[in-house]
Amino acid sequence: MTSPAGIAAAAVGKRILPVILSGGGGTRLWPLSRPACPKQFLPLIDARSMLQLTAARVGDRSLFAPPIVVGSAAQADLIERQLADAHSSPASLILEPCGRNTAPAIALAALVAPPDSLLLVMPSDHHIQYPDLFRQAVAAGAAAARGDWLVTFGIRPDRPETGYGYIRRGEAIGPGVFRADRFVEKPDAATAVAYLTDGSYDWNGGIFLFRAAALLNELAEHAPDILAVAQAALRDTGVEQRRVQPNAEAFASAPSQSIDRAVMERSRRVAVVPVDMGWSDVGSWDSLHTVASQDSDGNALQGAATAIETRNCLLHTDGPRLVTVGVEDLIVVVSGDAVLVMRRGESQRVGAIAAALEGGSS
Amino acid sequence: MTSPAGIAAAAVGKRILPVILSGGGGTRLWPLSRPACPKQFLPLIDARSMLQLTAARVGDRSLFAPPIVVGSAAQADLIERQLADAHSSPASLILEPCGRNTAPAIALAALVAPPDSLLLVMPSDHHIQYPDLFRQAVAAGAAAARGDWLVTFGIRPDRPETGYGYIRRGEAIGPGVFRADRFVEKPDAATAVAYLTDGSYDWNGGIFLFRAAALLNELAEHAPDILAVAQAALRDTGVEQRRVQPNAEAFASAPSQSIDRAVMERSRRVAVVPVDMGWSDVGSWDSLHTVASQDSDGNALQGAATAIETRNCLLHTDGPRLVTVGVEDLIVVVSGDAVLVMRRGESQRVGAIAAALEGGSS
Repeated sequence: MTSPAGIAAAAVGKRILPVILSGGGGTRLWPLSRPACPKQFLPLIDARSMLQLTAARVGDRSLFAPPIVVGSAAQADLIERQLADAHSSPASLILEPCGRNTAPAIALAALVAPPDSLLLVMPSDHHIQYPDLFRQAVAAGAAAARGDWLVTFGIRPDRPETGYGYIRRGEAIGPGVFRADRFVEKPDAATAVAYLTDGSYDWNGGIFLFRAAALLNELAEHAPDILAVAQAALRDTGVEQRRVQPNAEAFASAPSQSIDRAVMERSRRVAVVPVDMGWSDVGSWDSLHTVASQDSDGNALQGAATAIETRNCLLHTDGPRLVTVGVEDLIVVVSGDAVLVMRRGESQRVGAIAAALEGGSS
Repeated sequence: MTSPAGIAAAAVGKRILPVILSGGGGTRLWPLSRPACPKQFLPLIDARSMLQLTAARVGDRSLFAPPIVVGSAAQADLIERQLADAHSSPASLILEPCGRNTAPAIALAALVAPPDSLLLVMPSDHHIQYPDLFRQAVAAGAAAARGDWLVTFGIRPDRPETGYGYIRRGEAIGPGVFRADRFVEKPDAATAVAYLTDGSYDWNGGIFLFRAAALLNELAEHAPDILAVAQAALRDTGVEQRRVQPNAEAFASAPSQSIDRAVMERSRRVAVVPVDMGWSDVGSWDSLHTVASQDSDGNALQGAATAIETRNCLLHTDGPRLVTVGVEDLIVVVSGDAVLVMRRGESQRVGAIAAALEGGSS
C-alpha cells in the first residue's frame, strides 16, 4: 500500500516514527497568532517554537526515526527552516494543499509510512511539561499498538473543561494501558462536571500511537471515503527534496473531519494510556499564562515588558516597549499592528473577536 | 523700552495682545508626549491640538490682536504650521534658545510688545471647557490691568490638589475682581485640605493679564536679573519672517524661574478674577480622561480603539488597533514604540516612569 512517496521501512527500523501535525491555523492567540504565522511557529514557552519543542520531544534518534510532518503548503519553508534549526529535519514533509482537519492528514501520513511502522501522531502546538513521562507513556503504549490497538493518551482532568474530547477508561489490557470504553467529543458543561466527578474519564490530548497498517484498516472500515481520497491524492505524486505534494484537486474533495470522529469514536480497538505529563494545548492566552514561567508576582513577561506594581498578568510584546502600572489579572499582548488588553479568564473569546475584527474564522 | 524686534502699537490698537507660552516639554503624558512633540502640539481633546485650541480661544480679531508665541527654537516650524492651519499666525514668534521657565519667557514677550498693550499670557496646553466664560473673565480683569494690576485668574478648587499654586482672594477692587492677598506655590496635602475648607483660595491657572509696562516695572523691582537678561538677549536681535531669535548666550544666563515666584508672590499689586470655566491643565492621563468626551460606559476612545465590556477607561492609540475585553478603570496608551497600561489614579507617576525608562527628565 506504500505510495511512490513512501518512506523505506529500513530507514525506520524498529524505531517509532513521529508524525507531527502542523496544519492548524487558529486565531485563539490573536493578535499574536495570525493565519500567516500560527501558534506552532511561535516561541511561546521558551526561545524555541512549539513545533521545535514538539520535534525535540522525539529527538532521540535511537528511539524515534526522523519525523513525518504534515503541514500547510504555504508554510513549507518555515517548517523546514524551524526543524533544521532544531536538528530535526523531517524524513518527509507532506504539504496539504488545503486544510481538511486531522483524519485526511493522518491518512496521508499512514500511506507514506512503512505499513508496519508505529506512528506517534502529535499536534505541533501542545505543551508537555514533563517529556520524560510522555516518552514513558509512549513506551507503555507501544506493545498495545503493535497488537493493532489504536493507542490514545489520556490527560487527567483538573476542571470540567468543555473544550476537549474525553475518553473513558475500561479494563486494563496491559501495564498502564486500558481499553477505551467510550470516546466522546466535547461535552456540555453538565456532562463535563459528571465526567470529572466520575473519575474514569480522561481528556483526549489528540496524541495517538498505532501501526500505520492498523490505522489504514480502521479507515477502510469506518471512513473509506477519506482513505480513498488520500490514496488518490498521493497517486503519481512527485517527491522533491523529501517534500510530498498531494494532488490538490483530489485532496480538496476530502471531507473535513477529525480522526476522533472518523475513527476513534467508531473503532472497537481503541486503547488509552493515562499520563500526567503537564499537558496543555495552549489554546488560549489564559492557558499560556498558566504554562509560561512566572515571576514571584505571578507575572509572565515575554519581550520588552516592564511590570510595575503588577500582579498575575501575562505581558507579551513582539517589539514595542510595554509598561504596566498598578494592574492585576490582565493579559496584554502587543503584536504586529494590534494591542489586546483583556481581563484574565476572558481569553476563550479571543477567537471570535479576532474573527470579527479581521474578517477571518476562528 | 521696545526692542528692534518689537510689535508696533498701531498694529495692536485697543485690542488685547495674547501671549501664548509654548515652551513646555513635559513627559507626564508619556508615551504620547515626547521631547520632540510635547502635549501642546497633540490633538488630545478634539481634532485640533491644544495649541490650536488655545489660539482659537482668542481668535476674535475684533477683541484680540494676533498673538505673540514664545516657544522652543526646535519647534518653530511646527508652531507656525499649526497656527497657520488654525488661521492664527502669530504677530511674533519668540524662539527661546533654551528653556528657562516662564519668567524669562514672559519678560521677552513684554519687551517685544508695545508698552501700553494689555498682555493676556496663556499656557498653550491647558483645556478650557467654557471659553465664553474665560473671555468674560478677561473682560472683567481688563479694567484692573489697565490700572496696573497684575491680573490672575482663579480656578475654584474641587479637590485638595497639591500640584497647583493657590491664590487667596482679598477685598473686591472691581466687579468680579479681587485683590490677591496671598499667592502661594504648591502646598502640602494638609495645607491643600485647609485651603479647600477655607473657601477663599482658588487655584492659580497660570493665566495672566497685565500691561506690558506694568509687568516690566514689577520685574525691575522684584527680578531685575531676569529683566536684564531678557533685555540683553533681545539687543541687536534680528527679526526674520516675524521670528525673534534672542541671543542664545545671553538668554542661557537667565535663572530658570516661574513668573509666580519671580513676580506674583512678591508684588503688592496682584489681582484675581475667579472664573469657573471648566479649566484643566491636562497634566496627567487621569485628567485627560476627565476632560475628554466619554461614551455611555465612561470610556474615552481616541484612535482605532474597540472597547468590549469595558468601563471607565481611556483608550488612546496613534495607529495600531487596540482592543480591550472585560476591563475597567484602565488607561491604555499606544504611541510610537511604546504601550502603557495603567490603573486609573496612578497617572501622576508617569513622568517619573518615563524619565526612568527614557533617561529624560520629567
